[in-house]
Amino acid sequence: GMEGALPPASPAVLSAYVAVSQLLGLTLLATTGAWLGRYRGGVAWHGHLQFNVHPLCMVLGLVFLQGDALLVYRVFRQEAKRSTKALHALLHGLALVIALVGIVAVFESHRAKGIPNMYSLHSWCGMAAFVLYLLQWLLGCGFFLFPGASFSLRSRYKPQHVFFGIALFALSIATCLLGITEMLLFNISDSYSRFVPEGVLANTLGVLLVAFGLVVGYVLTRDDWKRPPLAEELALSMDFKTLTEGESPGGGS
Amino acid sequence: GMEGALPPASPAVLSAYVAVSQLLGLTLLATTGAWLGRYRGGVAWHGHLQFNVHPLCMVLGLVFLQGDALLVYRVFRQEAKRSTKALHALLHGLALVIALVGIVAVFESHRAKGIPNMYSLHSWCGMAAFVLYLLQWLLGCGFFLFPGASFSLRSRYKPQHVFFGIALFALSIATCLLGITEMLLFNISDSYSRFVPEGVLANTLGVLLVAFGLVVGYVLTRDDWKRPPLAEELALSMDFKTLTEGESPGGGS
Repeated sequence: GMEGALPPASPAVLSAYVAVSQLLGLTLLATTGAWLGRYRGGVAWHGHLQFNVHPLCMVLGLVFLQGDALLVYRVFRQEAKRSTKALHALLHGLALVIALVGIVAVFESHRAKGIPNMYSLHSWCGMAAFVLYLLQWLLGCGFFLFPGASFSLRSRYKPQHVFFGIALFALSIATCLLGITEMLLFNISDSYSRFVPEGVLANTLGVLLVAFGLVVGYVLTRDDWKRPPLAEELALSMDFKTLTEGESPGGGS
Repeated sequence: GMEGALPPASPAVLSAYVAVSQLLGLTLLATTGAWLGRYRGGVAWHGHLQFNVHPLCMVLGLVFLQGDALLVYRVFRQEAKRSTKALHALLHGLALVIALVGIVAVFESHRAKGIPNMYSLHSWCGMAAFVLYLLQWLLGCGFFLFPGASFSLRSRYKPQHVFFGIALFALSIATCLLGITEMLLFNISDSYSRFVPEGVLANTLGVLLVAFGLVVGYVLTRDDWKRPPLAEELALSMDFKTLTEGESPGGGS
């Protein structure tokens, strides 16, 4: 039998959770599209539909792509660390660009309609999430892709990078929930309390966002689903460690 | 010197983070009180101020007390596990009772004003958070306080309990942000965009809620701040483990 051989490429339950997360992610995008298409007139860059580019970009960039970027180390377990890292940075970079387009859309739409910017809790949380996400991406590239960072520096920064990565993902989702609530109260405040279809659909989008966050968060934080280091990585990191500890003999903790 | 002796009762940096969390928690309560007192006419159970009991109870119960209940294992590191567990359950129980009072307040206030219940995303998220929090509390009592649960059953449930505990705390905070946004758009929708003091104060409350969540989350998830098992607990758990594994010889994973 195969028992006792190498561990499987990916535990079966992990694969099921990842599949559910992707199903939820696609349902998120479809629900956002349905809301904007069916009840908000659709999406266009020029004219009065420019605002609608904002929610679409934010759900696609700051939720779906950000979530998938976080998942790459759980999904690609046998690939070289370097390729997985590059994919992680690339997906986050793509998420940042799409989020920037979404931010430009809302600022331009506000300017055209004479609406002030940055007064709401949604905008405060969203701007904080975006700026910190960009900072986190720059720090991540500096520490983990730039070849000059030492092994010990990387090891010390990594837990911070992981914590803030998950925290910013949670803040991004919370900001989307705030945006849904604002959109509903701006547009259908008179009928929202009568359980009209648009309100129920948008609430459902909110529940799906929370569910996506929960499933991704569970996959990321479950200890026994962490990507095990490949044999050659272990050897390499031991070399680095020996070198680094040789450099600073007094380093206690 | 004392070096090389027992580890300190609590790492100095951990104490600083806990102090900051408590300062943020008290500031949260003061800011909520200031908002309700200065701009919303104050708080009273009978009459038109009953609604205001809702935000006060939710910030006190579902944020401050829930957060502190999560922190007890990080704060009380040398006390017997059993006492710390009892305090953890007690604080969560108190949070649940206060949250229930807050829910009754909003339902009664809606009834008096003829406003429908449970139509908004805030109410959906809040009811889900409350029901799941109650369920989590009951499961926690059943698994960890009820003496009948075996050591292996407790070990298998514990990571789920920890993950959902932190997730529900995050959902509670997100629900508060939604509540702040609703209250502002119901009450000052005409002036919110002009940066009136009430809007800025309520936004600041939202930012403080996020900051409290971040600091508590950081303290909870930092690996080297986990409560180390006391010497007698280690001995005891080894006994249990031997017993349990003796009972089920086929238990592989």
